[in-house]
Amino acid sequence: MAEVVPLRVDGDRVEALDQTLLPHETRYFEMDGLATTCEAIRSLRVRGAPLLGLVGAYGLYVAGRERGVDEGSLRDAAVALSGTRPTAADLGARVGQSLASALAVPEPERLPLLRESADRLARDRVAEDLAMARFGVPLLGEGIAVLTHCNAGALATGGIGTALGVVRVGWEQGQVRACYATETRPLLQGARLTAWELKMLGIPSRLVPDTAAAALIASREIGAVVVGADRIARNGDAANKIGTYGLALAAKRAGVPFYVVAPTSTVDLGCEDGSAIPIEFRAEDEVGGFGGVRWAPDGVGSYNPAFDVTPADLITAIVTERGVARPPFDDELTSLCAR
Amino acid sequence: MAEVVPLRVDGDRVEALDQTLLPHETRYFEMDGLATTCEAIRSLRVRGAPLLGLVGAYGLYVAGRERGVDEGSLRDAAVALSGTRPTAADLGARVGQSLASALAVPEPERLPLLRESADRLARDRVAEDLAMARFGVPLLGEGIAVLTHCNAGALATGGIGTALGVVRVGWEQGQVRACYATETRPLLQGARLTAWELKMLGIPSRLVPDTAAAALIASREIGAVVVGADRIARNGDAANKIGTYGLALAAKRAGVPFYVVAPTSTVDLGCEDGSAIPIEFRAEDEVGGFGGVRWAPDGVGSYNPAFDVTPADLITAIVTERGVARPPFDDELTSLCAR
Repeated sequence: MAEVVPLRVDGDRVEALDQTLLPHETRYFEMDGLATTCEAIRSLRVRGAPLLGLVGAYGLYVAGRERGVDEGSLRDAAVALSGTRPTAADLGARVGQSLASALAVPEPERLPLLRESADRLARDRVAEDLAMARFGVPLLGEGIAVLTHCNAGALATGGIGTALGVVRVGWEQGQVRACYATETRPLLQGARLTAWELKMLGIPSRLVPDTAAAALIASREIGAVVVGADRIARNGDAANKIGTYGLALAAKRAGVPFYVVAPTSTVDLGCEDGSAIPIEFRAEDEVGGFGGVRWAPDGVGSYNPAFDVTPADLITAIVTERGVARPPFDDELTSLCAR
Repeated sequence: MAEVVPLRVDGDRVEALDQTLLPHETRYFEMDGLATTCEAIRSLRVRGAPLLGLVGAYGLYVAGRERGVDEGSLRDAAVALSGTRPTAADLGARVGQSLASALAVPEPERLPLLRESADRLARDRVAEDLAMARFGVPLLGEGIAVLTHCNAGALATGGIGTALGVVRVGWEQGQVRACYATETRPLLQGARLTAWELKMLGIPSRLVPDTAAAALIASREIGAVVVGADRIARNGDAANKIGTYGLALAAKRAGVPFYVVAPTSTVDLGCEDGSAIPIEFRAEDEVGGFGGVRWAPDGVGSYNPAFDVTPADLITAIVTERGVARPPFDDELTSLCAR
């Protein structure tokens, strides 16, 4: 078994795995300053909300080392880092926290503090993912195959992953015998990233065209569907990568449990329900082709939302690092977030 | 508006559109004998169950012209044609019918008869598709957008298509304002073929990743889902291209009508329900890549059924060339087939 390590730190050297080259090539690049870090975020060499938070924290550290830690330089670096992907809430939040804590101490202490903040965040990521797995695995049956969507693994968090962390620990403990991964059109994170993680970990796995997921679930081969979430409303409605809602419909029809695994930081108590969650639409040309191959006619537009909302009534349980919420979710989510 | 003509006959010359080159190139090749016809079927230059029946009928004609119409030659040609795609029931049936009618007359009359049989079948295809559209269009609302899956158009039938024929006539009559087409992984018939047909016909259209179809249906943008079928059981359970079942689940949840459009020849009264319909699995390497681009890690297997079964309770109506069947389907389908 090979560990999946999207970000590694060796002494002063911070290196990130170039996820755009996966699954065909495993190559790390050095985040040696502000420019390389910003470019890496913008070009999706690093992605996944929790991992981007971590990259932001280390990014501010390497920027400070490169450009100095006076207030102006650090503020400029923080603005540049946060501006690479404006909708990635975790990135902006973590960069902002690191900046604030650095500016609260005298200049000579700032660089060590930035590094310490980043290292602590990295440890927190691992602990948080392990906690979700600890709460999530007991929900699974014995000897089951699970289905997951998109990539909610180590590549996305820097820990062991959210949904895929549950799969991994469930497999290590013998409860999960195999994991099916959807391709996840249009950006194919399931086929490119999740399939690669499962292969690296040695977990028996198969790829599923998005079209075949409902039939697979209906076939009784699947004991649970396990997915991550990008934002969860107070009532339990969960926004996640486009396609999640369809899997939930199929699971409900087949009586298969549908689990959402996501940290409490994903829960937005200010959103009463899913209708309050804004849905980002992406470039139309992501549909109709991939990686230089174009299979649609020229000039045909597309409908390309990045996320969909799974209504709470289709969700069996929401697994967080602080415990499991079950329907009706309002009270339990509010109480988990308050802890 | 350009017509979509997958097979055209000019005097003695029979030409077929090479569908493997679509949507980027529109090139016809001459079916000048048995070998070119068999190769075209095997390599999927021509596809779609009803169109294959037509290709088989013209194939026997060009084979007879090339190799002679004595019983031995015709039988050999029929076996070769039917053997190109053993699971394509329409191909074998039409070739068998043409062969039987040719062998029933003296040799000098055989070639004209083979040609006449093929021409009649071509006219029947057009009439059948038009009849389905005539029954189907009145079911649609006014000014709606529809969603379709895979390719159930002229390219598949040689007429105006089954599901796409309904869309086309509905658009010509002003009831349909736009058509959304799913990409239809893994072979992408929606993105390659349906999007091309819609573009040729001038029908406003957009492409949808298979993952986004459920969210699109839930968004209330869609007034009806219209699909074809490969085989329909007596109770109305319908086997169609993989992914259809998921669309039906989403339509049911959203209260959107879900119509299956298919000729009575698709109804198999010998199948009591969907569990009796055999499902073909295709090569695992169709998943994880397309057209020379591979996006999955090497050595990862896949789950790749060609069809799924949509349970009858998710189907609003089944539109045939003889009329519309509504739930419970048993009696109405049996009576339509008996006419």
